[in-house]
Amino acid sequence: MVRQPTKDDRFSFGLWTVGWTGIDPFGSATRPSLDPREYAEKLAELGAWGITFHDNDVFPFDADEQTRRRITGQLKDAADRAGLVIEMVTTNTFTHPVFKDGGLTSNDRSVRRFGLRKVLSAVDLAAEMGAGTFVMWGGREGAEYDSSKNLYAALERYRDGLDTVAGYIKDQGYDLRIGLEPKPNEPRGDIFLPTVGHALALIAELEHGDIVGLNPETGHEQMANLNYTHALAQALFSGKLFHIDLNGQKGLKYDQDLVFGHGDLLSAFFTVDLLENGFPGSPDAPRYTGPKHFDYKPSRTEYFDGVWKSAEANMATYLQLAEKARAFRADPRVQEALHHAGVADLAEPTLAADETVADLRAAADEFDVDAAAERDYGFVALHQLAVEHLIG
Amino acid sequence: MVRQPTKDDRFSFGLWTVGWTGIDPFGSATRPSLDPREYAEKLAELGAWGITFHDNDVFPFDADEQTRRRITGQLKDAADRAGLVIEMVTTNTFTHPVFKDGGLTSNDRSVRRFGLRKVLSAVDLAAEMGAGTFVMWGGREGAEYDSSKNLYAALERYRDGLDTVAGYIKDQGYDLRIGLEPKPNEPRGDIFLPTVGHALALIAELEHGDIVGLNPETGHEQMANLNYTHALAQALFSGKLFHIDLNGQKGLKYDQDLVFGHGDLLSAFFTVDLLENGFPGSPDAPRYTGPKHFDYKPSRTEYFDGVWKSAEANMATYLQLAEKARAFRADPRVQEALHHAGVADLAEPTLAADETVADLRAAADEFDVDAAAERDYGFVALHQLAVEHLIG
Amino acid sequence: MVRQPTKDDRFSFGLWTVGWTGIDPFGSATRPSLDPREYAEKLAELGAWGITFHDNDVFPFDADEQTRRRITGQLKDAADRAGLVIEMVTTNTFTHPVFKDGGLTSNDRSVRRFGLRKVLSAVDLAAEMGAGTFVMWGGREGAEYDSSKNLYAALERYRDGLDTVAGYIKDQGYDLRIGLEPKPNEPRGDIFLPTVGHALALIAELEHGDIVGLNPETGHEQMANLNYTHALAQALFSGKLFHIDLNGQKGLKYDQDLVFGHGDLLSAFFTVDLLENGFPGSPDAPRYTGPKHFDYKPSRTEYFDGVWKSAEANMATYLQLAEKARAFRADPRVQEALHHAGVADLAEPTLAADETVADLRAAADEFDVDAAAERDYGFVALHQLAVEHLIG
Amino acid sequence: MVRQPTKDDRFSFGLWTVGWTGIDPFGSATRPSLDPREYAEKLAELGAWGITFHDNDVFPFDADEQTRRRITGQLKDAADRAGLVIEMVTTNTFTHPVFKDGGLTSNDRSVRRFGLRKVLSAVDLAAEMGAGTFVMWGGREGAEYDSSKNLYAALERYRDGLDTVAGYIKDQGYDLRIGLEPKPNEPRGDIFLPTVGHALALIAELEHGDIVGLNPETGHEQMANLNYTHALAQALFSGKLFHIDLNGQKGLKYDQDLVFGHGDLLSAFFTVDLLENGFPGSPDAPRYTGPKHFDYKPSRTEYFDGVWKSAEANMATYLQLAEKARAFRADPRVQEALHHAGVADLAEPTLAADETVADLRAAADEFDVDAAAERDYGFVALHQLAVEHLIG
Repeated sequence: MVRQPTKDDRFSFGLWTVGWTGIDPFGSATRPSLDPREYAEKLAELGAWGITFHDNDVFPFDADEQTRRRITGQLKDAADRAGLVIEMVTTNTFTHPVFKDGGLTSNDRSVRRFGLRKVLSAVDLAAEMGAGTFVMWGGREGAEYDSSKNLYAALERYRDGLDTVAGYIKDQGYDLRIGLEPKPNEPRGDIFLPTVGHALALIAELEHGDIVGLNPETGHEQMANLNYTHALAQALFSGKLFHIDLNGQKGLKYDQDLVFGHGDLLSAFFTVDLLENGFPGSPDAPRYTGPKHFDYKPSRTEYFDGVWKSAEANMATYLQLAEKARAFRADPRVQEALHHAGVADLAEPTLAADETVADLRAAADEFDVDAAAERDYGFVALHQLAVEHLIG
Repeated sequence: MVRQPTKDDRFSFGLWTVGWTGIDPFGSATRPSLDPREYAEKLAELGAWGITFHDNDVFPFDADEQTRRRITGQLKDAADRAGLVIEMVTTNTFTHPVFKDGGLTSNDRSVRRFGLRKVLSAVDLAAEMGAGTFVMWGGREGAEYDSSKNLYAALERYRDGLDTVAGYIKDQGYDLRIGLEPKPNEPRGDIFLPTVGHALALIAELEHGDIVGLNPETGHEQMANLNYTHALAQALFSGKLFHIDLNGQKGLKYDQDLVFGHGDLLSAFFTVDLLENGFPGSPDAPRYTGPKHFDYKPSRTEYFDGVWKSAEANMATYLQLAEKARAFRADPRVQEALHHAGVADLAEPTLAADETVADLRAAADEFDVDAAAERDYGFVALHQLAVEHLIG
Repeated sequence: MVRQPTKDDRFSFGLWTVGWTGIDPFGSATRPSLDPREYAEKLAELGAWGITFHDNDVFPFDADEQTRRRITGQLKDAADRAGLVIEMVTTNTFTHPVFKDGGLTSNDRSVRRFGLRKVLSAVDLAAEMGAGTFVMWGGREGAEYDSSKNLYAALERYRDGLDTVAGYIKDQGYDLRIGLEPKPNEPRGDIFLPTVGHALALIAELEHGDIVGLNPETGHEQMANLNYTHALAQALFSGKLFHIDLNGQKGLKYDQDLVFGHGDLLSAFFTVDLLENGFPGSPDAPRYTGPKHFDYKPSRTEYFDGVWKSAEANMATYLQLAEKARAFRADPRVQEALHHAGVADLAEPTLAADETVADLRAAADEFDVDAAAERDYGFVALHQLAVEHLIG
Repeated sequence: MVRQPTKDDRFSFGLWTVGWTGIDPFGSATRPSLDPREYAEKLAELGAWGITFHDNDVFPFDADEQTRRRITGQLKDAADRAGLVIEMVTTNTFTHPVFKDGGLTSNDRSVRRFGLRKVLSAVDLAAEMGAGTFVMWGGREGAEYDSSKNLYAALERYRDGLDTVAGYIKDQGYDLRIGLEPKPNEPRGDIFLPTVGHALALIAELEHGDIVGLNPETGHEQMANLNYTHALAQALFSGKLFHIDLNGQKGLKYDQDLVFGHGDLLSAFFTVDLLENGFPGSPDAPRYTGPKHFDYKPSRTEYFDGVWKSAEANMATYLQLAEKARAFRADPRVQEALHHAGVADLAEPTLAADETVADLRAAADEFDVDAAAERDYGFVALHQLAVEHLIG
C-alpha cells in the first residue's frame, strides 16, 4: 500500500471537483451540493495541501459585493483553519447564458466588456485569497460554425483581453500569474486555443506575456488526440508550465474528468516521471515546481462515500506512480537501456560549439549510413522495462 | 460547369502526389512510376501553375552530385518549357531507414548531422530551382514511447536545427522562407510539433524565426481533431501563413490525402472563403497570397486516367468553392445575417481607444445581463445560408 | 430556393429537439421551456408531418396516472388539431438519478425492475398515441470502468428486457415495433450496443426479434468513427431499418446534434441518396419507408427565432439534397461513371446460379491477373461528379 | 520478474509480425527478411506454442503449385521439429494490386472469382497444416467513396462468399472454423464489417454461420473508438469468440500494432482478466479457450535484437497481467467491493422464474425510488482497487 499524502506533496483540488453534483447533458443531479467549506475541510482531512475554485463555485453569479465578501471571507477562514492554501482562483465565464458566445471573444461587445469586468473582479479575489495562479479557461470562446466568427478579430480580442488582465495584475502589484487552459472542444464545437501549442503561440504575441503561461489538463490535450506528456514538455521548453490539471480520459469522446490514472495509465506514469524526475539527460532543463492540482469528477454513480474515495484515489495513484518512476530511473537495467537508446545523447548539440555549417558539411565522410540505418535503438525493450516497473 | 484553371489561379502540385504509385501499409504499387518530367508536363496541361518536389522524388537517395545536377537540371528545363514555376522544394528525411528515429531529432547525433547536411543540400537545390518556399515536414521527428526521448532536448535540437537552416539561408542570401508542416502522428506514434499551434510556439523561440513560418495541411490538422480554417486563421494572426497544403480527410484515421473537398466539404468551403475573401470585418488583416498547393494522393484504385482526373478535381473543386464563397459574401441576406450575428462587431476593441480598466469598471451599469443573455445570435440561420449557397 | 416541406415528405421531430433549453455540461438554460403543445403547433406550421416524444418530455417523472392521462390527452388533441401524427414515442430511462447505472442493465435489480415497468408503461402510452415505433435508447446502459460490470450478464439482461417488452407488445396486440438506438458513449464511458452492428447482433439473439429493429442516429455512428450510410445499408440488409434519426456531427467529440447537413455534408448527401433512391443496381433490395425523423438541438446561442429557423433548416437541407441526389442518379455522365466503376456489377453473384466450387476452380484460366490489377475503377472521377452535383 | 512462457500458455504469433521489415507509408524496410523457418524456430525458443501465417508470408503470390507445396512442407517440418503448432492459417487478399477494390466484394466479378479461388486454396492449405482456425481479414473490402459501392450488393457478396467458403469446409470435412477479423478503416477509408458487432450481425445471416465466428483484434476495435473487452464479451455472448488478436494501440490513428500492453494498459488488464477468469458472477458463461495470438509489429526503430525482445514482451506482459488479475479476483477487498457494487447481482434475472409482466407491475409498491437514486455503487473505489493491484 502506498503512503498517505501529506501537505508536502502539495496536492490540490478544485472545489468544483468533489462538488460536482452529477448533472450531465442527459441527467440531473445524483448528489446534493454541500457548503464549500465542507468540501475544503474534508479535502484537508484526506491529505490535500490546497484548494482552488471558480468565483461562482462559492457565491452566486448575481451576488452583491457584501455577500461575496462574506462568503469568500468565510471560505478563507475555513481554509486557514484547515491549514489549506488557496493556491489558485479562477472565474466562471461559461455557465451563465450571457456567455453563450464567449466572454472575451463574444460577438457582442457589451458581453465582452461584462466578461472582462468579471475576470478583473476575480483577479482581485484571487489576490485577496492569496492565490499564486489565476487560471483562465475560455470554454465558451469558440464556435460551432465557421461562418459565425471573424477568426482574426477573435484572436485580437483574446490577445487584448489577456493583456488587459495581465497589465492590471502588474499595475496592482499582485503576485499572480495567469495560467491559460486549452481545450479543443466542449462545450463549443471548436474552442479557440485548442491545445497547449496554440496557447503558447498566442502568449508569444502578448505585451505582458511574461506573466501568462499554461495550465494544461490531461484530458483536454488527449481530446485533441495528442500526447499530454509531450505537451508538458513543450510548455516547459517555452518556460510556461505555470500550473497543471491532472485527470483521466479514455480516448476521443466527451470530457470525462476521470480520476488521474483511470484513463491512459502508461501515459500517466510518464507524466509523473516528468514532473518528479525531469528530463533524462537534461538536468538543467526547467522543472515544474507548482502544485499537483486535480481537475476530475467523481462519477455520477457515486454518493458521498464515493466522492471522498475518488478524491483519495487521485493522490494515491500519483504517489504510487511517483515511487515507480523513481525506481524506474534508478534501475541499472533502465540506465543501460536509456544509454543504448541514446536518450541522453540527444542533449548534445548537433553542431559542436564553434562548428560552422561549412565544417559540418566537410565532415560528411565520417558517416556510415548503412551502419546507422541498422542501429537497433532498443526502444521497445526500454518501454517494456517501464511496463515491468509499472506493473512489476 | 466550373471554368478551366489557368496559371493566374496559381495552383501547384507536389510531384509525389500524382507520382504516388499506391504503396500503402498493406499493399504494393498499383501503378508504375513515370519520369518526373512527365508528371510536370501533364500537370501543366491540366492548368497547374507550379510544381513542388522532395529531393528524392527526382533523384535517388544515394545519387552522386553529378547525377543530381543532371536530373534536377533536366527537370528545371522541363518545367521552364512547360511554363511551370517550381515554387517549393523540400527534402525527404523520412523514407530511408537511417531516419527511422528522425532527422533533426534522432537520438543518434551522427544521424542528426547527416540529416542536417541533407537539409542544407536541399536548401541549395531549392534556391537553384528558384523556389520561394522550403517546406520542412518532420514526419519522423517523434516517438512511439514516452521513455525513448528526452523531450526537452528534442525541442532544443529541433530549434537549433531550424536556426542553422534559417541562418544558412540568410547567409547565402537566398530568397527563401521555411514552411514547417505540422502533423500529429503517422508515421510516428506522436510527432513533435503536432499542430499549427505547436509549430508557431517553437518558431517564437527561434533566432531566425522571421523567415520561418507554416505550411498547414488540411488533413494533418484534422487528424488532431481540430478545425483547419481555425488553424489558418491563427497562422495568419501570427504572420506565419507562408504556404498551404490542401487535401481531404474523413475523420480520425490514417492520413488519407483525399482530393480537396472530398473530405469535410463544408470545412473546405470556409477554407476557400478565408483564402479568397479574408476575414469578414477585418479588411486590413493579413491575407494569404501564396500558391494553392495540393498535397493529395490519387486513390490506389485508379490508374493513370484516374490520376489525371483526380488532379483536375482538386482545382475544379477549389474554383467552384471560390465562386460559391464570393456569392455567399455578396448575398444581402448573408450580409444581414452576419450583421445580426455581430460577426463584424468582433473587430471592435473591447475597450475604447483611451479607456482604462477603471473606466471599464465604472461603466458596469450600462449592461443589461438578462437582455444580453436572451440575444438570438442567429448562427444556425447564418450557417444554413452557407449551406444553401454551397448546395444551392 | 428549395420548396416548402409538406406532410407528404413525412418529416418528424422530437419535442425534445426544439424543446431543448440549452443546458449543457458547462452551462445553464439559455431559453425557457414552452408547453409541449406549442412546440407541436409550431412544427406543424413549419411543414412537419409528425412529432415524437419521451414520456417525461411531456409529464414529470413522478406524475400520477391522472396527471399523465390529462397531459398526454391534451397533447394528442393538439397534435390531431394540427394534423400531426405522433409517429414515435419513447421513454426516458436516463435523466433521473435512479437510472445512473442504467435501466435494463443496472447492477441493482430493483432498479431494473422499476426501469422495465417504466418502459412497459411507455409502450402502453405509445400504443395509445397511435405511434408505430417505440424507440429504446439505452444511454445509461453501460459503464465507465471495466471492473464495474459483469458484461455477459449485462447482455443477458438487455436481451431479456427487450424480449419482455417485445413479448408484451405482441400479447397486447399493439401495432408497434421497437427501434433500438445505438450510441458508443456519452453519457456513459462505454455504452452497451455501441453501434448499429452490435444492436443487430443482439437482436439476432432475441426470441421476439421480429419486431425489434434499429433507429440509427447520424451522429451516434460517427462518434464511433464509422460511416453512417454504411450503417443504414447493413440495417437494411438485415431487414431492420425501422426508424431513423437524422442530425449532424463534426467528428470525434461530444454528441453535437447539429442540424442535418451541418456536420459531414457529403455523407449527408449519400444518406439522402440511399433513403430516396435505394441501392444503385439492386432495385429489389429493401428500402426505408419510415418517417424522416430529426433528432437535433438548436444551438445554445439561439433564442426562439433561431429555434424555428434551425428546425426549418433540417427539412430544407434534406429536400435540397434529395433533389440533388435525383439529378445525380439521372445524369448520363454519372450513369456512365457508375458503369465504368462496376458499381451495379456487384449485384451479380460471384458464382453462377448452378456453379459449384469445383466449377469455379476449374475456370481459373480465364483470369488475367495483370489486366485486372491495372483496371482503372474511376472512383475518384465518380465521386467528383457527386461533388459537382452537390455544389454545382 | 515474471516467469518464462511455456507451451502450456498457448501463445502464438503470426510469422508476419516478427517478419515485418518496417515498410510503412512513408518509409522503406529497416530490416531484412528472414526465411519463415527462422522466425518459427526463434519463436519456439522464446516460449511460443504456435505460429500462424498468410499464404504469401511463406510463398510468393505467383508461386506454382510445386513451389507452394515444397515451401509449406518445409515450414511444416520446421514447425514440427520446433514443437510448434500451426494453429491458424489465413490468406492475403490485400497486398497485390488486383485486390485494390477488395477480394470478395470487388466491383469486378472476375476479381471476386479469383479472390474466392485464392481463399479456397488457402483453406486447403490451412487444413493441410493442421490449423484449427482460418482467419479472414477483409482489409480491402470497403470503399473510400460512398458513390463507389452498391452497399447492399457488397454485403450480399460478402455473405455469399463466406457461405461458399464455410460450405466448402464442411463438404471437405475439414476440422476448421472461420474467424472474421473486423477493422473500421485502413487500408480502405471505410471497411465493411468495421467492428465485432457488424461481423456478428452478418454471421447471423449466413447459412453456414455455425462455423463462422470472430477473431477480434485489440487495436482494430479501439480504432472504432470502442472498448475491446466489451467486444470480446459480446462475441462470447453470441458464442462466437473463436480466435483472438492481441496487440496495442494508442488512440484514434493509424493501425499501430504495438506490443500487447503498450497501448491502453488498464484495458489490457481487463482483457486478460476476462480471458483468464471469465465473467464475475457468471461461472457458467462461455469462456475463451483458444490460443493467445499476438498480431503486433516490432517497431521500425528496432533491428533483430529488438524484434525478439518485442516478441518476448508480449508474452511477459500477458503473464504478468494474468497473475495480477488472479490476485485481483482473490483479494477479499475486491470481493467486498464487487459485492457492494452489485456486479454479481446483474446475473440475477430481472423477472423471477415464473413472474409475468402483470406480476412485475403489481410489485411496483416495493420500490423506493429515492433510496435507489442515492445508492453509492462504489465503482470508482472498485476501479481504484484494480489500479492498485495493477501497479501495486
